[in-house]
Amino acid sequence: MVFVARDGKLLKSMLKIVKIGGNIVDNSVKLRAFLTDFAALEGSKILVHGGGKVATAIAAALGIETVMIEGRRVTDERMLEVVTMVYSGINKQIVSALQGLGCNAVGLSGADGKLILSRRRPAVTVKGKPIDYGFVGDPVSVNAAFLQLLISYGVVPVILPITLGESGQLLNTNADTIASTVAVAMSTAMAEEGVELVYCFEKQGVMADMDDPNSLVERIDAKRFAELKAEGTIHSGMIPKLDNAFSAINQGVSSVVICAAENIAKPGYGGTTIVA
Amino acid sequence: MVFVARDGKLLKSMLKIVKIGGNIVDNSVKLRAFLTDFAALEGSKILVHGGGKVATAIAAALGIETVMIEGRRVTDERMLEVVTMVYSGINKQIVSALQGLGCNAVGLSGADGKLILSRRRPAVTVKGKPIDYGFVGDPVSVNAAFLQLLISYGVVPVILPITLGESGQLLNTNADTIASTVAVAMSTAMAEEGVELVYCFEKQGVMADMDDPNSLVERIDAKRFAELKAEGTIHSGMIPKLDNAFSAINQGVSSVVICAAENIAKPGYGGTTIVA
Repeated sequence: MVFVARDGKLLKSMLKIVKIGGNIVDNSVKLRAFLTDFAALEGSKILVHGGGKVATAIAAALGIETVMIEGRRVTDERMLEVVTMVYSGINKQIVSALQGLGCNAVGLSGADGKLILSRRRPAVTVKGKPIDYGFVGDPVSVNAAFLQLLISYGVVPVILPITLGESGQLLNTNADTIASTVAVAMSTAMAEEGVELVYCFEKQGVMADMDDPNSLVERIDAKRFAELKAEGTIHSGMIPKLDNAFSAINQGVSSVVICAAENIAKPGYGGTTIVA
Repeated sequence: MVFVARDGKLLKSMLKIVKIGGNIVDNSVKLRAFLTDFAALEGSKILVHGGGKVATAIAAALGIETVMIEGRRVTDERMLEVVTMVYSGINKQIVSALQGLGCNAVGLSGADGKLILSRRRPAVTVKGKPIDYGFVGDPVSVNAAFLQLLISYGVVPVILPITLGESGQLLNTNADTIASTVAVAMSTAMAEEGVELVYCFEKQGVMADMDDPNSLVERIDAKRFAELKAEGTIHSGMIPKLDNAFSAINQGVSSVVICAAENIAKPGYGGTTIVA
């Protein structure tokens, strides 16, 4: 296949990096439908998945309380064990479902093959109080050569949101950030092919009015993002998601789209395109 | 390094396939000591690990009863979810510990890259009663080419005991059998190098008298195995372990040893050598 990039250059089939959010992962019917579409996508691809709410439920059953601050999970040692177990289990369920759909997947955390090295996030001050998120990491490097080896062998990497800190420490990591970081690294490693990053979730994309399903923002640039943030239309979890999306497009990723999971098989994905 | 095989042929450094049992996996101090030794082993290597009793504890906490028949776990749909999650979590803990020890590991189930395809075990009759072990599989093939790709890239595969049945169905699989099956497949794929299979567990090896720690059987052939079985010295879980060990040596694996986990760094491993 041949694609035309933003700059009009003809590109070979781009590498697709698709992130699927926790709300889809939590819903077995929607996940199955999404994986069926994902398996059928042509060309090289990588799937990055979130953790979903299963970790919270399993933690509760094991008597471990979930503490969230500003929408982010505080990850102490026991919670790290739970999320590692739950996310890794979800990863194998996704890998096996893809195998059943004829897509030769291979599941990886950031620790496998030193795929994603990260730095433990220092304690921060939130509303005047010092907050330590615990075993949470921000990616610092991606082993693009290992991903290229796997892709050229014909397998589809499926990445779970746990990365590798110093001295073999596992660190809980935001899946949107992983998708963005992997896309940037692969854009350098596979400059000739180019990389397409697609964030799939339960909404249609960026909405100008959350109560109006017809208010999809088809294209968004940094100026419009700032405006929509200022008026409060874009808030909460959409802010870091868009920060990650802009980070990717500003660092050489060919195309970045935020769309509904059910639109992954549609041309152009029918969502919001990020404009550098 | 150069080794001398049974037939006197000089071999290049053999591929080591090491299986570590559930009783070691359950013990964080012993596991750490073992992984430190394993990380230091020279040459190409693969680690296969068991599940341990963590799955039973997590299942109990989630209100799922563990049913064992003749020492084997009955795996219904919910138990399969638990063992997949727990074994995958253990796998990531082992991978990250090895990374911290300077060993570039990559964790894999049998579903990843279609590494180990299996057949669901049909219902059997035990003591006159029909028993269905549920989602339990016996390996039928190994993707040796994928393991070779990873090994030649310089990573160390760490395999968890879940394999891939028909239509993407995950199947709970005996880790001793996985180790033996992988060793046989790699013996064909890497005939020039040869393969060494080492079963590590909490005992010293095959014991002629379980009450006498000095009764280690240093070498065992099929005749001696039959004698020790007949007199009841070898019983329970040691029978399938030895069946797997003999299966490997009889299908071209260069060397098969059963030894204590703490002896993995010792020359010859100080255990029981299986003689074809």
